[in-house]
Amino acid sequence: MPMMTAEQYEESLRRLNLVVYMFGKRVENVVDDPIIRPSMNAVAKTYELAHRPEHEDIMTATSHITGKKVNRFTHIHQSIDDLVKKSKMGRLLGRETGCCFQRCVGMDTLNALSIVSFDIDTKYGTEYYKRFLKYLEYVQQNDFTVDGAMTDPKGDRSLPPHKQPDPDQFMHVVEERKDGIVVRGAKAHQTGAVNSHEIIVMPTISMREEDKDYAISFALPSDAEGITYIMGRQSCDTRKLEGGTMDQGNLLFGGHEALVVFDDVFVPWDRVFMYREYEFSRQLVEQFAAYHRQSYACKVGVGDVMIGAAQTAAEYNGVEKASHIRDKIVEMNHLNETLYCGCIACASEGHKEPSGTYCVNILLANVHKHNVTRFPYEISRLAQDIAGGLMVTLPSEKDLQSPETAKWLKKYFKANPDIPTEHRMHILRLIENLTLGTAATNYLTESMHGAGSPQAQRIMISRRINMQEKQRAAKRLCGIE
Amino acid sequence: MPMMTAEQYEESLRRLNLVVYMFGKRVENVVDDPIIRPSMNAVAKTYELAHRPEHEDIMTATSHITGKKVNRFTHIHQSIDDLVKKSKMGRLLGRETGCCFQRCVGMDTLNALSIVSFDIDTKYGTEYYKRFLKYLEYVQQNDFTVDGAMTDPKGDRSLPPHKQPDPDQFMHVVEERKDGIVVRGAKAHQTGAVNSHEIIVMPTISMREEDKDYAISFALPSDAEGITYIMGRQSCDTRKLEGGTMDQGNLLFGGHEALVVFDDVFVPWDRVFMYREYEFSRQLVEQFAAYHRQSYACKVGVGDVMIGAAQTAAEYNGVEKASHIRDKIVEMNHLNETLYCGCIACASEGHKEPSGTYCVNILLANVHKHNVTRFPYEISRLAQDIAGGLMVTLPSEKDLQSPETAKWLKKYFKANPDIPTEHRMHILRLIENLTLGTAATNYLTESMHGAGSPQAQRIMISRRINMQEKQRAAKRLCGIE
Amino acid sequence: MPMMTAEQYEESLRRLNLVVYMFGKRVENVVDDPIIRPSMNAVAKTYELAHRPEHEDIMTATSHITGKKVNRFTHIHQSIDDLVKKSKMGRLLGRETGCCFQRCVGMDTLNALSIVSFDIDTKYGTEYYKRFLKYLEYVQQNDFTVDGAMTDPKGDRSLPPHKQPDPDQFMHVVEERKDGIVVRGAKAHQTGAVNSHEIIVMPTISMREEDKDYAISFALPSDAEGITYIMGRQSCDTRKLEGGTMDQGNLLFGGHEALVVFDDVFVPWDRVFMYREYEFSRQLVEQFAAYHRQSYACKVGVGDVMIGAAQTAAEYNGVEKASHIRDKIVEMNHLNETLYCGCIACASEGHKEPSGTYCVNILLANVHKHNVTRFPYEISRLAQDIAGGLMVTLPSEKDLQSPETAKWLKKYFKANPDIPTEHRMHILRLIENLTLGTAATNYLTESMHGAGSPQAQRIMISRRINMQEKQRAAKRLCGIE
Amino acid sequence: MPMMTAEQYEESLRRLNLVVYMFGKRVENVVDDPIIRPSMNAVAKTYELAHRPEHEDIMTATSHITGKKVNRFTHIHQSIDDLVKKSKMGRLLGRETGCCFQRCVGMDTLNALSIVSFDIDTKYGTEYYKRFLKYLEYVQQNDFTVDGAMTDPKGDRSLPPHKQPDPDQFMHVVEERKDGIVVRGAKAHQTGAVNSHEIIVMPTISMREEDKDYAISFALPSDAEGITYIMGRQSCDTRKLEGGTMDQGNLLFGGHEALVVFDDVFVPWDRVFMYREYEFSRQLVEQFAAYHRQSYACKVGVGDVMIGAAQTAAEYNGVEKASHIRDKIVEMNHLNETLYCGCIACASEGHKEPSGTYCVNILLANVHKHNVTRFPYEISRLAQDIAGGLMVTLPSEKDLQSPETAKWLKKYFKANPDIPTEHRMHILRLIENLTLGTAATNYLTESMHGAGSPQAQRIMISRRINMQEKQRAAKRLCGIE
Repeated sequence: MPMMTAEQYEESLRRLNLVVYMFGKRVENVVDDPIIRPSMNAVAKTYELAHRPEHEDIMTATSHITGKKVNRFTHIHQSIDDLVKKSKMGRLLGRETGCCFQRCVGMDTLNALSIVSFDIDTKYGTEYYKRFLKYLEYVQQNDFTVDGAMTDPKGDRSLPPHKQPDPDQFMHVVEERKDGIVVRGAKAHQTGAVNSHEIIVMPTISMREEDKDYAISFALPSDAEGITYIMGRQSCDTRKLEGGTMDQGNLLFGGHEALVVFDDVFVPWDRVFMYREYEFSRQLVEQFAAYHRQSYACKVGVGDVMIGAAQTAAEYNGVEKASHIRDKIVEMNHLNETLYCGCIACASEGHKEPSGTYCVNILLANVHKHNVTRFPYEISRLAQDIAGGLMVTLPSEKDLQSPETAKWLKKYFKANPDIPTEHRMHILRLIENLTLGTAATNYLTESMHGAGSPQAQRIMISRRINMQEKQRAAKRLCGIE
Repeated sequence: MPMMTAEQYEESLRRLNLVVYMFGKRVENVVDDPIIRPSMNAVAKTYELAHRPEHEDIMTATSHITGKKVNRFTHIHQSIDDLVKKSKMGRLLGRETGCCFQRCVGMDTLNALSIVSFDIDTKYGTEYYKRFLKYLEYVQQNDFTVDGAMTDPKGDRSLPPHKQPDPDQFMHVVEERKDGIVVRGAKAHQTGAVNSHEIIVMPTISMREEDKDYAISFALPSDAEGITYIMGRQSCDTRKLEGGTMDQGNLLFGGHEALVVFDDVFVPWDRVFMYREYEFSRQLVEQFAAYHRQSYACKVGVGDVMIGAAQTAAEYNGVEKASHIRDKIVEMNHLNETLYCGCIACASEGHKEPSGTYCVNILLANVHKHNVTRFPYEISRLAQDIAGGLMVTLPSEKDLQSPETAKWLKKYFKANPDIPTEHRMHILRLIENLTLGTAATNYLTESMHGAGSPQAQRIMISRRINMQEKQRAAKRLCGIE
Repeated sequence: MPMMTAEQYEESLRRLNLVVYMFGKRVENVVDDPIIRPSMNAVAKTYELAHRPEHEDIMTATSHITGKKVNRFTHIHQSIDDLVKKSKMGRLLGRETGCCFQRCVGMDTLNALSIVSFDIDTKYGTEYYKRFLKYLEYVQQNDFTVDGAMTDPKGDRSLPPHKQPDPDQFMHVVEERKDGIVVRGAKAHQTGAVNSHEIIVMPTISMREEDKDYAISFALPSDAEGITYIMGRQSCDTRKLEGGTMDQGNLLFGGHEALVVFDDVFVPWDRVFMYREYEFSRQLVEQFAAYHRQSYACKVGVGDVMIGAAQTAAEYNGVEKASHIRDKIVEMNHLNETLYCGCIACASEGHKEPSGTYCVNILLANVHKHNVTRFPYEISRLAQDIAGGLMVTLPSEKDLQSPETAKWLKKYFKANPDIPTEHRMHILRLIENLTLGTAATNYLTESMHGAGSPQAQRIMISRRINMQEKQRAAKRLCGIE
Repeated sequence: MPMMTAEQYEESLRRLNLVVYMFGKRVENVVDDPIIRPSMNAVAKTYELAHRPEHEDIMTATSHITGKKVNRFTHIHQSIDDLVKKSKMGRLLGRETGCCFQRCVGMDTLNALSIVSFDIDTKYGTEYYKRFLKYLEYVQQNDFTVDGAMTDPKGDRSLPPHKQPDPDQFMHVVEERKDGIVVRGAKAHQTGAVNSHEIIVMPTISMREEDKDYAISFALPSDAEGITYIMGRQSCDTRKLEGGTMDQGNLLFGGHEALVVFDDVFVPWDRVFMYREYEFSRQLVEQFAAYHRQSYACKVGVGDVMIGAAQTAAEYNGVEKASHIRDKIVEMNHLNETLYCGCIACASEGHKEPSGTYCVNILLANVHKHNVTRFPYEISRLAQDIAGGLMVTLPSEKDLQSPETAKWLKKYFKANPDIPTEHRMHILRLIENLTLGTAATNYLTESMHGAGSPQAQRIMISRRINMQEKQRAAKRLCGIE
């Protein structure tokens, strides 16, 4: 059964026994919690579309270990074409869900580990890669959603892991046993954590020998004993509790992040993929980061939704033919397609690693993500410009149901005579959702910091540029020997 | 009693009998409603600071009609110095409240009317100006907060008022009586409406003779019979209902907007300041808009809060010395002070109108506001960059109170060892408030559309530029006769 | 002999009998003219690099008609890989020459004609494609440089060709003979015109039936009777006459543009590729424009030179370690690589046309070019920032040779103690050349207008976006049926 | 005779005996040299306009020492009004000349010295201020143009003056005599140097005790023995030698910069205004810089010319009604007026120094200048967009005179039927001049580096911001004690 349906996915989540807290209380039924459920729906879309013939080419791949058709989110890229399709899958799902669908972080982790575990083995004769392939088969066979966990709390930013006053600020091994290791620490900002079957941990920074207890990578079932999830809250999260069908903006999908605490959790050896090989930390971080920066292809899809919403709002406001409105729509598209160029280019300029895995062009993946820290903010600003001020002064949908107020709203919020006032309100609520509400936390803030904050990309750009070549060219042209 | 205290202001509001709806229900106690109260607090600040000696120079003025000291918000500008102080008052209050304090729209309306009612009288021998001065004295004497109401729903944007299928899409007179007029219509996006004692209505566009029934301006008590307020909702508004002291971000202040419906409301003649003199609509709109575009000086003060919050977050995160952080703080300040230059320059380049009122330089006021539609978005983006991703993945404050989760939050969200975790959470919630929450609707979307959307400023810039002079200069330099 | 060497290319030009005017006089020896020669050198580079083994893969291709190795500039793209290599060839040559190397316009014309002549034949049963292939073989066999000529003078912009008071403002047929046609008109801004062996003319806009005499495409030898070239002048062009080795900045290469006048020129039928099939004008324009917008890959290479020069200037100034300098270098690279993403993505997302020719993704090619109208200006601004004011206050190189002044220059323009003052002057002159001088006309103004001005790209972006899909996605998410 | 006419100014320059080198040769007749003369014309404009009644208010002031009317360029600001008028004078002259008119640097130097010499006296009981006032009277009496000289070559940027391997990299005293001092060093980028009667030297950086020999300020006649001027060259400078009336773009005015070498020059004591009071170096630098950053008001005037030229080009091209063209013109104006706001605001927010001199608001002056390092580049980019590609492919004016080519140019460069082709060429040459030619060195590169490079302003912004106040406001709002 290598590909689950959306329904099977939901059922599989019900079988998990996760320890999840939100608003200070244990969440008893994670799957049906109204705040969490839209994020589950978004992940479920990755299962659903894989069964649609029109999306099969993008959403599925042939496993290089079993030869079976698998969901692309569990696939190890075997070609440039795989890399390009990954970008297109991101855009497709971003457009279908209008939010973060949470499953790429696991795919990126699997691919990064396929490279690095192989390279460690090559150097040390270890057998991480063998373990990894076995684990990968398990993931593919069960079509699991995997949470890739990188970001440690980091404590005092000026100190390396081993110098932290609290040694748990970076995930580390606290006990080595015959059958495995015991780990302690936490991972912050974990996207889609409580919708995942598995969680794979990686180190978050380059490390030196003194930090070797922190140089660990391993996989665990998401409900392993000792793991606690504390849900982060989002702008406008509680609108999902109001029971309406308008004010939450995106009625179907959302995202979530959680703090994941590992309180002395046991990991058996066959799920350990790096253990104290500290000098490979940097490679693992950079490789994962590159893949994950490519994954911000999804924001192009969310941008499609934003542009579609802005165009619709313009039509509902009755101003879609004004030259300045048309020009702003063009600008939004131009910026969005510039982002698309980035995620396509870093894929099409990819290369094969020793393990056989194809990796994106790391320079261009960083350039792509760096634009993602900028353009969505401008696209969002333009959407607010087009939407008009009503987007933030609109009464609640309950006012549309109350007889005392409904008459006034229907009368005075009518603009385009062919469009019901409710439709106008719906589309404005969607733009509010994308620019200020739950989706804004993904489209804006996560675009800023997810897969690394802007400065991280600038450092990588600086490292990956061939400056000598450029200087040689300049000097030759002006006659400097 | 020409200047109320904050307490007196609050008491005065309790005496009003406003018809206010929110979430589909009538609000019985407007002053103490937890969603509305922070906006009342912000207006109250305009009363409080007027009594503080250190702010007296900025916050008060001497009435040109009574010679008494009045709150500057009820003053008619008598000099360039008055105009400059108005800008400084806006920045001061923006910094003190971190939001929209709602009282400038009334001040701008009074000043615009002081000019236009005088000019109508000059042309027609009417006595609007006399009425206006009497009304002004009443406002000054009582130290009222006045809502200036301009924006009509506008219906089909391609049609003028008299051609609308629904004639009420623009406020108009429906009956002329011996003792006054009866008006019908609505005003949208009314900032601070339910915190106001009075409401002054103006037309929203230039009008032609066919629209003369729509060319009206008048004042009413805010609780006049036939007026209904329907509150707009804001991003994260219901956090104010949660009863905590952290997650609402700004614990003290907020803003609000409402749709105000006038259902056949009677206005006595002594409160009518324009009646069918359609050719003065444009002047009134432009004059009010210019004053109100200047008023976006307040966003410089909110920008001060944003910058202070970002700097504090950087310190609490332990990264304030990184060169890229310092550079981003400089950039935020540079943009914020560029805005300040705009609101100072349009004031210091002001001029005297025939009525004796001083008016800002209209070109520069538009230039200023146009920058306000841009820079706060970039300042906000930089603040999110500095704040870090935790701003949108932070658990709720209830998780900080629950023993099962508090230990993890306190442990893992500790960064700068000298700073309690709670403080770090507080400052991040403030930045969330300013960039995504209730204040973002003011700092961003209202900056975009308040006092006119960007395109309105571009049209005014285009009209007010002396292009001939520039072309003459260019032609002379290159030898074109 | 399908591939000439640089020397053979130069000799071949000497055999041409071009009628060229510059500064009001006939240029007797075009090849050796000091103003023109650097542009010839740049074209020669396209011949030279094709013989270098390290560049063979990029610079050459296998002809699909003869199976012989040909210079890629004469090749019809047979695959996505060909399209991608074309972009890389552009960057390579831009970096090697620091200017416009002029030969891509012919390549783009050949490829566009290969598609459109085939499509016309399909519709009308004509034999343009057969003629075209024969002509192509002739071009490949002789390894010609071809000028693709599109831009007509256009006269009154508000009128179509047939309504112009002067009918020659668009190229048109004035006589049809048994053996061919006679044409009249002019083509403006012809890059590399006097370094070309052949010139292919295309229409410049969409046309309707009334304009059918203007819907023509044909090829001519560049020295055909009746063709006159009038050289355009560039900023700082006469520095090439000063005889020094510093002040011209780029000592080796340059570009040129010319007005080409066709004064009743005869074209035999076998060189006519479109004749009155007016409805194909738009396709030819759009196809050529898309290819040519991709060709602005070259500016990434010139950007490499700019970045290399700025980094070198920073080192020579002794400030390369300052954090703000490093940050500006990162920004320059980021923008330059964003451009690179555009030219790679539009190629890798290309497709096969009915003729078998591969064409770029037209939307993305337009997006790419549109960024080229922006980023080089910012890259240039940053280069000026890094270079320092000395770039525009530097005395002439003659002052470095005169004993009375050389001592002062050598003493006072010394900065980095390890670098001779001359080197510092050389690199500053190169940046001057790129940001203000002859190369700036290419790197900036041509980036703006070449292959179509910005508005042309915005129109194409608007046409090529699938807005329905975006609107459907938005409506579904917020519940609008 | 406190105010010279333009003619008297020119005559006064003829009486100077300057040692000027250009292109490796001594310039015998500076005033009539065709490269230098346009810059003299620009300075002459400052004399001419002072006699025009319509500009008297802006161009002249009443000397606070003699009570006589003086040219404002020799005036010490006695009020806010003086500061504001200075900004307006800058815009006026920028618009009239389309270039740098060079005389503000002396005005700024005099004002800065009036403050600092007073403050030194206050601390040390010296009599610099008395000397200064006497010198000022001499300058006012003779209506001199004064070159203010600040920028030293600086040698190795990582070393302070006294550690430089070559001690002359910063201007310093080499001998103290009974009657005065002997100085050695150089000043780079001296705007208008050879059009000046006097030169006043200031230190260029903050200094410490070890650098006290470098902490000197003094005045000299521009033709004092030992002073040598080496002219810097500009983009397209030699077009001024071609003898035409079109291709130089700006036919009347220009600017220049020179390296000024002081080879053991004697300064009598009564012209020494600072001598080893090293701790006042920083104040003098900051005060001068603030005044001079305000002076970039001139670029608003040059921006007026650019906008006028772009609008004219659009009309001559026949496209002025296209919505995108109109929008770009609005954007150019918006940016230009934003700059104007800066120079007005820093003036109107000025204050009185202990000496009685009024000084601009230093924070806002830096903010203003910082925008000047950005917006002119964007204005210039937009002008190139509007002008069209012909701006860089236009043949020379000699081609318009030659019968063989003139016919083609007149025929094919005709656009708007009402405008002679020559006019279109003239206006395009002016835009070339402003964006790539001699004026571009002033409008762009000097805007970047004059009065301090961008990073210098960022440092000052960082120093002058009251961050504590902002942080207090932020903390209070979110409940941090």
